[in-house]
Amino acid sequence: MKKGLFITFEGADGCGKTTQMTLLAEYLNKKGIKTVLTREPGGKGLGEKVRDILLNYDGEVSDRCESFLFLADRAQNIDIIVKPAVEKGEIVLCDRHIDSTAAYQGYGRGLNLDRINMLNNIATNGKKPDLTFVFDIDVDTSMKRVGKEKDRMESAGIEFHNRVRKGYLEIARQEPERIKVIDASQTIEDIHKEVISILETYL
Amino acid sequence: MKKGLFITFEGADGCGKTTQMTLLAEYLNKKGIKTVLTREPGGKGLGEKVRDILLNYDGEVSDRCESFLFLADRAQNIDIIVKPAVEKGEIVLCDRHIDSTAAYQGYGRGLNLDRINMLNNIATNGKKPDLTFVFDIDVDTSMKRVGKEKDRMESAGIEFHNRVRKGYLEIARQEPERIKVIDASQTIEDIHKEVISILETYL
Repeated sequence: MKKGLFITFEGADGCGKTTQMTLLAEYLNKKGIKTVLTREPGGKGLGEKVRDILLNYDGEVSDRCESFLFLADRAQNIDIIVKPAVEKGEIVLCDRHIDSTAAYQGYGRGLNLDRINMLNNIATNGKKPDLTFVFDIDVDTSMKRVGKEKDRMESAGIEFHNRVRKGYLEIARQEPERIKVIDASQTIEDIHKEVISILETYL
Repeated sequence: MKKGLFITFEGADGCGKTTQMTLLAEYLNKKGIKTVLTREPGGKGLGEKVRDILLNYDGEVSDRCESFLFLADRAQNIDIIVKPAVEKGEIVLCDRHIDSTAAYQGYGRGLNLDRINMLNNIATNGKKPDLTFVFDIDVDTSMKRVGKEKDRMESAGIEFHNRVRKGYLEIARQEPERIKVIDASQTIEDIHKEVISILETYL
């Protein structure tokens, strides 16, 4: 049986990754390829409950608590959603995954990157995505796109988001085979074409 | 300023640890010692939300997800509740902590103990309790005390709970200075006296 693919979509809020994921799912469905959409935090069920805590809890949250909540959601997403689908030969598209943790908690917040990678490795049982798109956009543009209704993660300030952006680009430099950086200032249609042209080499 | 104490209460559900924690809090309050009660999972606020997921979620939960949820709750409990109180010289009594994870996930479920200890160490920032009581009771008695309204954790079967009990006793053998095993088949009053007599040497 043909093995599926696990593809992750990364970048700042407002970079257009969710739009691109939806467009790619439509494209794959038209080609008759079974496609599963998920996201972190919050694939479905338990994940949605964890997502609600991470994005909307209004009390004080310890940094290490936050990291573990993301990891809990990640382990659940991999074990219950991603792995079974990929083993059936399906394509899983995931909105945020391990590289978000490295970019936001590591580069953004300054937590230890080796430890983040070690914990990501436990949460994923050592399995990395087959392909990752990083939608790169300058912080001003992404902040404008997100607008005034920011959640707890989005309201962390310009400097933080600049560090996150640089983090994504650094991670992509370290794993050029897996991670493809796409200029997200292009039109939706042009980005979609670039996504497909990269993906075709994996199908 | 006098540093406080962090005391944890461990053992099977139905062993009487919550009763003993309440009695000890009353005793300390009468002596004019400021005492904070907390529990894992679910100290307060965010912890209660995580506790609700852990005990009541009725879908499939990946083992590794469950472990990370406990760790998230633990980090939050230590950073937001335990550490600030101990630094003010207060006594914190906590219902379940690191030894529950080792006993239930490690000895009970067979997950890797070295990894559990490493993760506990991250969640607690390396700080162990000053004193831990393990209330030891045979599985039949604890199951009868818990009765028919079992939550997701309690309904895991007799063999599992026997492994957990053996795990607690093994951990206590490894750290005799920190962990005191109390025979929980005694009367509530006799157990309370034993708890106090052990604690007096720490005050």
